Amino acid sequence: MSSMWGNKVKVSLFGESHGKGIGVVIDGLPAGIPLDLEKIQEHMRRRAPGRQAWSTKRDEKDIASVLSGLYQGKTTGTPLCAEIQNTDTRSLDYAELAEKPRPGHADLTGLARYNGANDPRGGGHFSARIMAPLTFAGAVCLQILEARGIEVRGHIFEIAGIQDTLCDGMSLPESVAEKEMPVLSDEQGVLMAAAIEAARMDMDSVGGIVECIAAGFPAGLGRPIFDNIESRIASILFGLPAVKGVEFGRGFAVALAKGSENNDHPQISEKGIRLTTNHGGGIEGGISNGMPIVVRCAFKPTSSIAKEQDTINLTTMQNDKLSLKGRHDPCVVPRAVPIVESAIAIALLDLMEEG
Amino acid sequence: MSSMWGNKVKVSLFGESHGKGIGVVIDGLPAGIPLDLEKIQEHMRRRAPGRQAWSTKRDEKDIASVLSGLYQGKTTGTPLCAEIQNTDTRSLDYAELAEKPRPGHADLTGLARYNGANDPRGGGHFSARIMAPLTFAGAVCLQILEARGIEVRGHIFEIAGIQDTLCDGMSLPESVAEKEMPVLSDEQGVLMAAAIEAARMDMDSVGGIVECIAAGFPAGLGRPIFDNIESRIASILFGLPAVKGVEFGRGFAVALAKGSENNDHPQISEKGIRLTTNHGGGIEGGISNGMPIVVRCAFKPTSSIAKEQDTINLTTMQNDKLSLKGRHDPCVVPRAVPIVESAIAIALLDLMEEG
Amino acid sequence: MSSMWGNKVKVSLFGESHGKGIGVVIDGLPAGIPLDLEKIQEHMRRRAPGRQAWSTKRDEKDIASVLSGLYQGKTTGTPLCAEIQNTDTRSLDYAELAEKPRPGHADLTGLARYNGANDPRGGGHFSARIMAPLTFAGAVCLQILEARGIEVRGHIFEIAGIQDTLCDGMSLPESVAEKEMPVLSDEQGVLMAAAIEAARMDMDSVGGIVECIAAGFPAGLGRPIFDNIESRIASILFGLPAVKGVEFGRGFAVALAKGSENNDHPQISEKGIRLTTNHGGGIEGGISNGMPIVVRCAFKPTSSIAKEQDTINLTTMQNDKLSLKGRHDPCVVPRAVPIVESAIAIALLDLMEEG
Amino acid sequence: MSSMWGNKVKVSLFGESHGKGIGVVIDGLPAGIPLDLEKIQEHMRRRAPGRQAWSTKRDEKDIASVLSGLYQGKTTGTPLCAEIQNTDTRSLDYAELAEKPRPGHADLTGLARYNGANDPRGGGHFSARIMAPLTFAGAVCLQILEARGIEVRGHIFEIAGIQDTLCDGMSLPESVAEKEMPVLSDEQGVLMAAAIEAARMDMDSVGGIVECIAAGFPAGLGRPIFDNIESRIASILFGLPAVKGVEFGRGFAVALAKGSENNDHPQISEKGIRLTTNHGGGIEGGISNGMPIVVRCAFKPTSSIAKEQDTINLTTMQNDKLSLKGRHDPCVVPRAVPIVESAIAIALLDLMEEG
Repeated sequence: MSSMWGNKVKVSLFGESHGKGIGVVIDGLPAGIPLDLEKIQEHMRRRAPGRQAWSTKRDEKDIASVLSGLYQGKTTGTPLCAEIQNTDTRSLDYAELAEKPRPGHADLTGLARYNGANDPRGGGHFSARIMAPLTFAGAVCLQILEARGIEVRGHIFEIAGIQDTLCDGMSLPESVAEKEMPVLSDEQGVLMAAAIEAARMDMDSVGGIVECIAAGFPAGLGRPIFDNIESRIASILFGLPAVKGVEFGRGFAVALAKGSENNDHPQISEKGIRLTTNHGGGIEGGISNGMPIVVRCAFKPTSSIAKEQDTINLTTMQNDKLSLKGRHDPCVVPRAVPIVESAIAIALLDLMEEG
Repeated sequence: MSSMWGNKVKVSLFGESHGKGIGVVIDGLPAGIPLDLEKIQEHMRRRAPGRQAWSTKRDEKDIASVLSGLYQGKTTGTPLCAEIQNTDTRSLDYAELAEKPRPGHADLTGLARYNGANDPRGGGHFSARIMAPLTFAGAVCLQILEARGIEVRGHIFEIAGIQDTLCDGMSLPESVAEKEMPVLSDEQGVLMAAAIEAARMDMDSVGGIVECIAAGFPAGLGRPIFDNIESRIASILFGLPAVKGVEFGRGFAVALAKGSENNDHPQISEKGIRLTTNHGGGIEGGISNGMPIVVRCAFKPTSSIAKEQDTINLTTMQNDKLSLKGRHDPCVVPRAVPIVESAIAIALLDLMEEG
Repeated sequence: MSSMWGNKVKVSLFGESHGKGIGVVIDGLPAGIPLDLEKIQEHMRRRAPGRQAWSTKRDEKDIASVLSGLYQGKTTGTPLCAEIQNTDTRSLDYAELAEKPRPGHADLTGLARYNGANDPRGGGHFSARIMAPLTFAGAVCLQILEARGIEVRGHIFEIAGIQDTLCDGMSLPESVAEKEMPVLSDEQGVLMAAAIEAARMDMDSVGGIVECIAAGFPAGLGRPIFDNIESRIASILFGLPAVKGVEFGRGFAVALAKGSENNDHPQISEKGIRLTTNHGGGIEGGISNGMPIVVRCAFKPTSSIAKEQDTINLTTMQNDKLSLKGRHDPCVVPRAVPIVESAIAIALLDLMEEG
Repeated sequence: MSSMWGNKVKVSLFGESHGKGIGVVIDGLPAGIPLDLEKIQEHMRRRAPGRQAWSTKRDEKDIASVLSGLYQGKTTGTPLCAEIQNTDTRSLDYAELAEKPRPGHADLTGLARYNGANDPRGGGHFSARIMAPLTFAGAVCLQILEARGIEVRGHIFEIAGIQDTLCDGMSLPESVAEKEMPVLSDEQGVLMAAAIEAARMDMDSVGGIVECIAAGFPAGLGRPIFDNIESRIASILFGLPAVKGVEFGRGFAVALAKGSENNDHPQISEKGIRLTTNHGGGIEGGISNGMPIVVRCAFKPTSSIAKEQDTINLTTMQNDKLSLKGRHDPCVVPRAVPIVESAIAIALLDLMEEG
C-alpha cells in the first residue's frame, strides 16, 4: 500500500515538503454526503503551525482546494482529491543536510530505501507536513461519522511527564478542541506549555502522549483475525511521524491487572446491554462492543533540535557535528491531537463502510 | 483481509477450536528453501499447552501435517498448507456459555458480528488455539529469516508487575527459548511463576508483556508512509488474542524523554555507519536502520477465570453469574513468546519479500 | 494476491496434483447461511474426470472434506476450509517431463518463475486439478447466490467450430447442467462429441468456448473504474487454465456494430425500467444494470496430446521429441462449464458482499 | 480498489469531466529514474481530442502538471501526482441528460450505484476524459519499461469490419504511433477513416479492435494462479470505457484450433531457447515466456450519437426520445491506441516491480 491506506475508504497521500503541492485522494467515500468545507478548514487550522507561541513560524496557509469528488456541496461517491499548494518554502535551511544526516530522522534510512533519489528538501515526502492532507481526509471522515452520531475527540494525555486530568474513559468535551493546548485541565496545560518552553530555551525538545475517544461507534464492527479494530487503527497511527507506541483501553497497564477486575462485565441496563467498565477500550476480540473506543499513542520528542548533536558527514565519511537551524516545534504533541483524531476517523469510517 | 494477513507473503488462517481441524495457507513463500520440519515442531511445542505446570491440561499434540507447497523438503514457491487435526475437544464444558457471555471475551461482540452463527464451542475461530497454525507459519518464516542471518527472539518482559532483567536492546541469547519460563533472569522467572500460581489458586489470572528483538534485519526496508515497519508489525500483533498495546524501541517511555538524549546518533565505526544507541528500536521514519528491531506487546490477564463473575443471561435477559470450569491458563504470556516471535517473523519476511 | 482471489469474499487455493491434498480457504462468507453439501458434491461431479466417455480415466473421487467454517450446517462467517485428498496419483507417467518441457504448458515458464522448485509431478500447483477446490468454492457461492434469487448457468457455446444453438441472452435452462454434454441443442452436442472423439483418435485435442449467464443479479453493483464487474470477472476467469479470451455481451462482435443498434435502450415496462436488448451483457459503465450478465471465455485445445511433438531436452540442451502418455482430456470444455460457473459465482458474491 | 489499480505500482485516478481538474497519483514507482516530460506530453497528445478530422472539437490542452514525486528530473520513489486542469467545459450541453439517461452509458447504472450523487456533467468521473491521467501514468511506465528494453506498441486491428494488415505477432514499428490513424497499412487506414466519416454523416458510430504487442518482456514473471499476466492485464483493460472483450495470442480463435498446431514448441536457437510460434501471446500458464506479449481488446461503438434514440424520461417516467448534441467521436478506437498501450505498460511495470 505504501502511501495509500484503507480497505474500502482509501486515502492516497502525495507531495513533498518543498515541492509544488501536497494532497490526498480519498477513494470510496459514501455518495451524497454534504461536506462543510469551512469546518474542514477549522479542523486543519488546529494542526497548522504557528498556533502555539513556540510552534514553527512557517507561514503555511494550508488552504485545501478540492479538485474532484464534490458536486453541489455533496460527495459524489467517486474519488475526492484535495490539494494544498506549497508557498512558504525556504530550502536553504536544509542545504547542510545533504551531507549530514539528522539524528532521529529518516535521512539515513531514506537514503538506503530510495537510493538517494528522495527529495531531500525539508524531508521530502516524509516531512510531517504530509500530515496536512491526512488531516483534511480525517476532517471529511469526521463529518461523515458525526452525521452518524459518532464523535472522535482527543486531548493531550501527557507531555514531558506532566499528565492531564484522567478522563472518565467515556467521552471528551467538544470544548477541548478549541484550546491552544487541548487538555481537560488548563492548569496542567500551563505546566505542559512551560515544559515545552523550557525545552525550547534549552534548544531541546520533549515528547508526549495523545489520547483519543470515539463515542457512539456501533457494536459488531471489525473483522477478526487481522482486520480487527485494533490492528486497523494501529496500522494507520504508526504511519504518523514520531509515533512509537499505540495502546487501547488500559493498554500496557493490563500487565499489572488481574482478570477478575480487568474484565468488563455486561449488565442489563435501561439502555440495553452495557458493560459496567470500559477497560477494553470499546473492543473485545477485535470487534467493537458499543462502548467508547479509547486509544493512546506516544510521540517521541521532536528529532530536529537546535542543540549541537553528533552525526556523520557523508562526504568525508568522518564523524561530525550538526546544529539545526530550521523552524521546528519543540513538541509535536499539541498539533498532533487533530492528526490522531483524523487518522482514527479514517480508520473507523473504513471499518464501517466495509461492514 | 479478515483472517488473511500479508502483502507478499500471505497467511490465511482457518479453523475452530472444536471443529475438525485448524490450519494455515502460506502464499508467496520464496521457492526452493529447505525447511526442517522437526525444528518447526519444536517451535510449536513452545506454544503448546501443558508445558508449564499451571497451563491448560488440554492434550493437544498439535502435529502439523503439510498438505502442499513442500517438495523434496523444499518450498515450491506455491501455497504451503499445514493442517492440525483437533483431537481432544470437550465441548460440554462450553454448554452454559450459549446463554451466558463470558466477560472479557468476544462472545457478545461475536454475536453482533456473526449474527449468532459463529461456532460457540471453545470460542470457535476466535479461540487462542488458532495461534497454533500462526505459530507454524511463523516457524517457517523464522527458518527462512535465519538462513538470511536474521534472528528473531523473545522473552517475558514482565508478568504481574515483575520484570525480567533489562536486555541490552541488541540481542537475546538463544537459550531463552528452551526455558519453561523464557526469561533472562531465572530468579525473576521464579517470581513470575509464583505470581501466576498465586493467581491460579485465587481462581484469577494475570497479564504481562513480551519483548522481542530481531537482530540482523537489513537497513532500508519498510515502505512509508503506511507500509512502514511499525505499522506492519503492529497490524499483525494486534491480531493476537489479548494484545492491548504495541510499542517499539523506547515506546511509551519517549513521553518522558528529551530529543537530545532520545535521538540515536550515527557514528563511523569499523563496521561502517552505526548508531551509538538504539532508542528507536531499529526503525527511523518507518524504515529499518540496520539496528536490532525491538518490539514489546502487552497481554491482558486471561479473560477466562474460575472466580465467579457478573454477566447477563441472554435467554432470560436478566443479570446473572458465571463460573468458568474449562481449562484455562492463568497467564498467557509464557506461551505467547513464540507466538510473538512468529508474528514478527511473518511480518519481517513479508517486508523483505516485498522489497 | 497470487493464489488468493477476492476483495471481500476471498478464496485461497492450495495443493499440488500429486501432493497430499488440495483445497481452498474461503474467507469472508456471510454468516448463518445453510449449505447443502450433497448439492455441492453434485456440482463438483460435473467437473470431475471420467464423466464423459473420452475424459481422463483418473479415478478422482474428489470428496471434499469441510475442516472449518461450517457449524450445524450453516456458515459461521469465519473461514471455511475444504480439503480434497489426493488418492490416485501415478507419478511415473511424468518422469520424462523433468527434462522435456511439454509444449503449451507452464513447464518452462514455471522453471523460470520458481527456480526449478515447483513440484513437477502432474503440473504441481498448476495442474488443472486445482480447479476442483475452486469448483467447491464456486458451489458454495452458487448456493448463496441462489438463495438471493440469482442463477448462474453455463453451456458449451462452441467446440471445434461447432456452435450450440444461440440462447436468448436472458437465461439458460437448469436442465443443461445435468447433461453429459451441457448444451442447449443435443444434436449439436452429438457433433461436438464426435469432433472430440475424432481428435482423440488422432492423438490430438480441440478447443472451444463456454458461455455463462447470470440472471437475477441486482442493478447498481460493481465499483468503477477498476473494480467494475467486467474487470473482476475477467480477472478470475483468466486464472482458469487454458483461458485465452473473455468477453461480455456481444464481446468482440461490437467491432462490427453501429452505435444506433448496439446501444441498449431503456423503456418503461410493467416491471419498471427495462432495456429492450442486452447487447451490453448486463453491464454498463462497469456497473450491473439488472439485465442478465452474459460472459463467454475461450479455452485453447488441451496442450497435453499423445501425438509426437517437437520440444527440447534440458539435460542435453538439444532439440528432442515428446509423446505424452498420461491421462488427458482431448477437450477441456465440457468439464470447464461448472468451473466457469464457479468462478463467476465467486466474483459475483464478492461484488455483492463488497456492496 | 475502485479507482485505484495495482499491487506494487499503484495508480489512483481522480477527477470529473467538468470539475476543477483530473489527475493521477502513481505510488510505488522505482526511485531515481529520469523522466522526459516532453515525451510524456507527446504520448498524451496521441490520445487528446481534435487530432483526427472527425474527433471531438473540445479544445483540451491536457497539459499535465507534476505536483510531486519528481526531483531534479528523476522519480523520487515516493508518490508522483500529476494534475490536468479542466478548462474548456460546456456544461450546458448536458442539461437535458439529468432526466433522460443516455442509452449505452452509465447514466442509469450510475444513478443506482451512487444514489444520484455522481456529478452528471459530461459523465463526471466516468467520462472517457479520465483516460487522460491514465495515459499520463502509462507514459511514465512506458519510459521506465523502455529503459529496460521493453517496447509496448499498439495499432488499430479493426474498425467497422475493416482489418489492418496482420502483423507478424512479434513487434510493431515505432512509426505507427506517429500516424493520425495508427495502422500498418495506410490503405486500410483510409478505408477505416472513410467508415468513421460515413458513420458520422449518418449521426451514428462504429466500433473496433486495438492490438498491442509488448516486446522484450522478460520470461518468468506473473504470479499464478490469480496474479497471472493475463488476469492483471485484463483487469486494467476492462477498466477502460467501452471495452467489451480482451484476448491474448490467438484469443477466441483457439476455439477452432487443434492442440498439435496450437502448442508453441520450444527449440534450441542461437539465442537460447525460443518458441517456434507465438500462439500463446507470450504467456504460458499465466507466466511470461519471453516471447512478445500479444493482446487485443474490443471497443464498442461510441454510445453518444446524434441520431435520435429511444430512452425514458425520469421525471415523467414515460418513454421518450433523445438526440445528443455534445461533441463526440464517432469512433473511439484511433484515440484508444495510446490508452491501451498505457494500461498495458502500467500492468507490466507493476508485474515487474512485484517480481
